[in-house]
Amino acid sequence: MPELRKDPIIGRWVIIATERAKRPSDFKVSQEKPKGGFCPFCEGNEDKTPPEIMAYRKNGSQPNTPGWIVRVVPNKFPALMIEGGINREGLGIYDKMNGVGAHEVIIEGTSHEKALSDFADDEVESVLWAYRDRIIDLKKDTRFKYIMIFKNHGEAAGASLEHTHSQLIALPIVPRNVAEEMNGAKDYYSYKERCIFCDIVRQEKNDKSRVVFENDDYLVICPFAPKFPFETWILPKTHQTHYEDGQVKEYKNLAKALRTTLKKLAIALNNTPYNFIIHNTPIMTEKNIPYYHWHIEIMPSLTKVAGFEWGSGFYINPTPPENAAQHLRDIQV
Amino acid sequence: MPELRKDPIIGRWVIIATERAKRPSDFKVSQEKPKGGFCPFCEGNEDKTPPEIMAYRKNGSQPNTPGWIVRVVPNKFPALMIEGGINREGLGIYDKMNGVGAHEVIIEGTSHEKALSDFADDEVESVLWAYRDRIIDLKKDTRFKYIMIFKNHGEAAGASLEHTHSQLIALPIVPRNVAEEMNGAKDYYSYKERCIFCDIVRQEKNDKSRVVFENDDYLVICPFAPKFPFETWILPKTHQTHYEDGQVKEYKNLAKALRTTLKKLAIALNNTPYNFIIHNTPIMTEKNIPYYHWHIEIMPSLTKVAGFEWGSGFYINPTPPENAAQHLRDIQV
Repeated sequence: MPELRKDPIIGRWVIIATERAKRPSDFKVSQEKPKGGFCPFCEGNEDKTPPEIMAYRKNGSQPNTPGWIVRVVPNKFPALMIEGGINREGLGIYDKMNGVGAHEVIIEGTSHEKALSDFADDEVESVLWAYRDRIIDLKKDTRFKYIMIFKNHGEAAGASLEHTHSQLIALPIVPRNVAEEMNGAKDYYSYKERCIFCDIVRQEKNDKSRVVFENDDYLVICPFAPKFPFETWILPKTHQTHYEDGQVKEYKNLAKALRTTLKKLAIALNNTPYNFIIHNTPIMTEKNIPYYHWHIEIMPSLTKVAGFEWGSGFYINPTPPENAAQHLRDIQV
Repeated sequence: MPELRKDPIIGRWVIIATERAKRPSDFKVSQEKPKGGFCPFCEGNEDKTPPEIMAYRKNGSQPNTPGWIVRVVPNKFPALMIEGGINREGLGIYDKMNGVGAHEVIIEGTSHEKALSDFADDEVESVLWAYRDRIIDLKKDTRFKYIMIFKNHGEAAGASLEHTHSQLIALPIVPRNVAEEMNGAKDYYSYKERCIFCDIVRQEKNDKSRVVFENDDYLVICPFAPKFPFETWILPKTHQTHYEDGQVKEYKNLAKALRTTLKKLAIALNNTPYNFIIHNTPIMTEKNIPYYHWHIEIMPSLTKVAGFEWGSGFYINPTPPENAAQHLRDIQV
């Protein structure tokens, strides 16, 4: 069972893998993986993953056989274990608990070659529905306080398999970055009585200099103070607290916004690796909170995080977001 | 003039380089730099850096000529500019100020080949004195609230030049990671009436399982909840708030502890790139605070930070610190 341990000074939790512990010789520094070779995510290899949790399928095909469109499976090497109690415990001045949680892989499509940015809009839409269905299901498990959906594309962004996929981790605590964002938004609301994300949408739509793309439901911007060059956010244009509570037409427009943005980034940055993260409201939060607004943050891996950033939490960004947005806006896809 | 911009949600400041703005074609993804070639930090090339701020020299040699031991110069491509006022300003809901600050390079020695871990103890000690002298000097500039000293070793850790060096950045604000650490330590103190770092030193000395090295003045440990495999901290054994206020014998013992630790890490991890950061008390803090304790954190670059870590602030660490500490303890240097 992995352990969750809390840093006693700043309260950050870390997941310590106690079972398959890595020794120095297990780290192969920035070694390129061979391309090609066997892929457990390809159609026809369904028996090489743990049994599927859900899949969207054509023609009534059977679970764990070919014929799927999107397929969700448990991570074969999970960071957290789905079974067991939480068991909080002290160790002198330190705190720990069992590493309980869900770790799932969303295999976005059957093609080994196609990146998510090369998908058709309706294929991206199926992936977005799979995210939604998994959130709805996992919310029923009362051990979990937060469900994080994210994608690592390309090895420099941490992807260990080439075949396009995203991941889901359900956690027994609200992670600190999320808590921080919620608290920041709450403070703003108590001062201004307006949602800060709604204010951002309003100001960016007026200003236009950081807008990349928009449709009826979503605004895509390079944010005012981005950590990384070409960092790009997708925000619902109206106040929406929960990703999983969207209207049917909204998932359609989100698919369009996400696909267009990823394609623009792929062209601008020559398929640079990236991460995206869905920032969603924590599970136990009351419904209809007026201060928080879910959104997606996309971060291309163009720069290295070094000592200054680790020490300060300050980032040095060599590309003003106005320049990045203009560049992305001008690319036709 | 670079701009400091504040993220309106969580209050993180970023430095936006507005002058030498990078376009997509300026990013060369993980391209190896050629080894060898011209080095502005080598002895004899003193005129290829901006004029030196200070140096320790042998035999009364002249500034900006050979004959130095440690040499401090302004960064040729500074993230912040030393001249100008701070000029805070609002932009609708956003906040920004001028990117004022100092950005210096501490060239640790004349040899192009020798890593800091290969230095003799007294050579490391000279570097530590240079850090101290620069802090003492920059504290006089009332525009600055924090002085961060850090080292990026190896390209994967963000070093752009091979010749061994560290960096100093003086900032017009206390960066959020520092503020967070100070606040966490303050909260602990107000609850326990003990310094959390003193408590960590006490518990680790008793427990022994995470101790890497110790001498009269310093304890070297792998912390209980490390973000990264083989993360290692150096802590003063008694309560010390300011790096720059050490006793002469303490810098001697710190040099020994740092050199030994870096050497153990270099052997264990086959010269893996790393960052180290001196976590020091902010400038304007009252003297003799009972709750904070300066220390050094060393972070080898063995794993990649990916979507989950960016989104959650949670880290997945595949090496328990007890295993890492045992491994490092057993290496004789």
